[in-house]
Amino acid sequence: MKYSTQLLGISNAIVDILTHVEPEFIADMGATVGAMNLIDEQRAETIYRSMGPATEMSGGSVANTVAGFANLGGDAAYIGHVHDDQLGKIFNHDMRSLGVDIRLQPASTGAPTARSFILITPDAQRTMNTYLGSCTELAVADITDKTVGIPKVILLEGYVWDIPEGPALARKTMEMAAEIGATVALSLSDAFCVERHHASFMDAVVNGAYIVIADENEINALMQTENFDESIAKLHAFDNMFVMTRSAEGSVIAQGETRIVQAAMPVEKLVDTTGAGDAYSAGFLYGWANDWQLEECARLGTHCATRVIQQLGARIEPGLIESYKQIDAG
Amino acid sequence: MKYSTQLLGISNAIVDILTHVEPEFIADMGATVGAMNLIDEQRAETIYRSMGPATEMSGGSVANTVAGFANLGGDAAYIGHVHDDQLGKIFNHDMRSLGVDIRLQPASTGAPTARSFILITPDAQRTMNTYLGSCTELAVADITDKTVGIPKVILLEGYVWDIPEGPALARKTMEMAAEIGATVALSLSDAFCVERHHASFMDAVVNGAYIVIADENEINALMQTENFDESIAKLHAFDNMFVMTRSAEGSVIAQGETRIVQAAMPVEKLVDTTGAGDAYSAGFLYGWANDWQLEECARLGTHCATRVIQQLGARIEPGLIESYKQIDAG
Repeated sequence: MKYSTQLLGISNAIVDILTHVEPEFIADMGATVGAMNLIDEQRAETIYRSMGPATEMSGGSVANTVAGFANLGGDAAYIGHVHDDQLGKIFNHDMRSLGVDIRLQPASTGAPTARSFILITPDAQRTMNTYLGSCTELAVADITDKTVGIPKVILLEGYVWDIPEGPALARKTMEMAAEIGATVALSLSDAFCVERHHASFMDAVVNGAYIVIADENEINALMQTENFDESIAKLHAFDNMFVMTRSAEGSVIAQGETRIVQAAMPVEKLVDTTGAGDAYSAGFLYGWANDWQLEECARLGTHCATRVIQQLGARIEPGLIESYKQIDAG
Repeated sequence: MKYSTQLLGISNAIVDILTHVEPEFIADMGATVGAMNLIDEQRAETIYRSMGPATEMSGGSVANTVAGFANLGGDAAYIGHVHDDQLGKIFNHDMRSLGVDIRLQPASTGAPTARSFILITPDAQRTMNTYLGSCTELAVADITDKTVGIPKVILLEGYVWDIPEGPALARKTMEMAAEIGATVALSLSDAFCVERHHASFMDAVVNGAYIVIADENEINALMQTENFDESIAKLHAFDNMFVMTRSAEGSVIAQGETRIVQAAMPVEKLVDTTGAGDAYSAGFLYGWANDWQLEECARLGTHCATRVIQQLGARIEPGLIESYKQIDAG
């Protein structure tokens, strides 16, 4: 089988606006700490007006993973919806500069490019307030033979279910993947998102998404359990491969009877946990797309996550695979 | 005398677009290493298309100083020209969020908000490529009793001379300052800028700008000497106060027969020298506007510069005066 691309990401294209705040600020804004809070345009204005100076960087969970995958040297493409404005240009530039093939043109009408205000508290936790804007206009009609091509892996994120045509376009993507022999990976995004769309996610896991990427809270939400051990026990009933990150406790890959446990790597200085899971996915999928052994996939994922949490923002400077080879040789 | 503001900055309002590059990239672009290179819109497109993923933050030399001054708790205002686009909104937001009083409305016509591609090489040096855009539309007519008010200090930058009405609006500003009893400070911007406008700068220094802020190369360019000792010797002929930064060799304040030498402070990890001089100016002027002794002004300036070079970008997180009080108590 000859694939035209290793990885195709389909997700919400977002520019992150990062700032440091005290915990009281988040309480005042009525946001849920550590979660992704969906906000409308008016709320976005209020938060922006109230917050301090910020730094802008391209973001979006699956988009971060696609960027990381390309940064590692992987061959990647992306479907996401931006407006033809300055933030949309920034988003596309950052993808293209890593070699990612952008499959949709920016829209000249409709809402402005999406932004997420990422409020970082002194404990390096981040609370996201996302105005979806142009993302909400991603449509079933954007998923075509031409925009999809023949990728080895198609990566979807749970957040796509938050946009009007999201569930339908995810379904269409999974059907197309089955036809062309692509593997679908689904990143569960966050535990609240899993709760919002539980039945639909479960259907996707059983009927289409072979690889399931989740953190501990997300897998517990999907399995409707109270703790990780209970979740792990329930996974036996599924044919999928589950890739699960557990912060300082490392990560676990579960597939059938196989269990691979990868410890976390040392962190000199924790700066900002934004993008840790996305970076892990980039490393893991890069290994997987290149037919590495699962242990090595988990190890590269861990390296990527370890690097991203020691800097501000969700995307890592180019040169990721070189730094991995260094630790591997060391 | 009752002033309405402590510090008013008048300068080019710019959003910085920062990225890490290898030295070869700068050579390929034909830019002068370590300098501010003025570029047109087409060149801006070429550089942006060729460079890697970037981070966006508000910038502009005097604007950085004004932001730092407000961050320290000073009372500041700003006159600069942005377009009513996303980058212009980002610029104004970051100023306002620190309490800076923005005196001009964004323009709904004309060129887009200015941007500077800041290319950071592994030695932490930065090469700027600035597309002035909307800045070039700042006009003499924007300098009025209403926009200026009665500030204690008016800070101008040499880069203002690079815009069409810059020399005339600088002259008008100095005349208004003389009438209202404001002190004018002139930051020389960079040595190439001093060479571009030498006669006009010299006239400003002799007839209007009491405080002259410069690094070693800039003061040598203004004094037309080969080294710092020769420049220092020539300063005796001027009535001005010269505030001069010398990177690792610290800073020197020269006024009449007074010479104050402040050593550099220890740097744990040099990340990016962007904004070092601007941050120094913020600290120095904050002390000066609050009638501190010159030694203390130089010390606060050094603290600010030391903090900014240990992070990415030209502006420091809020909480600057608190961190100074800590080192002062320590």
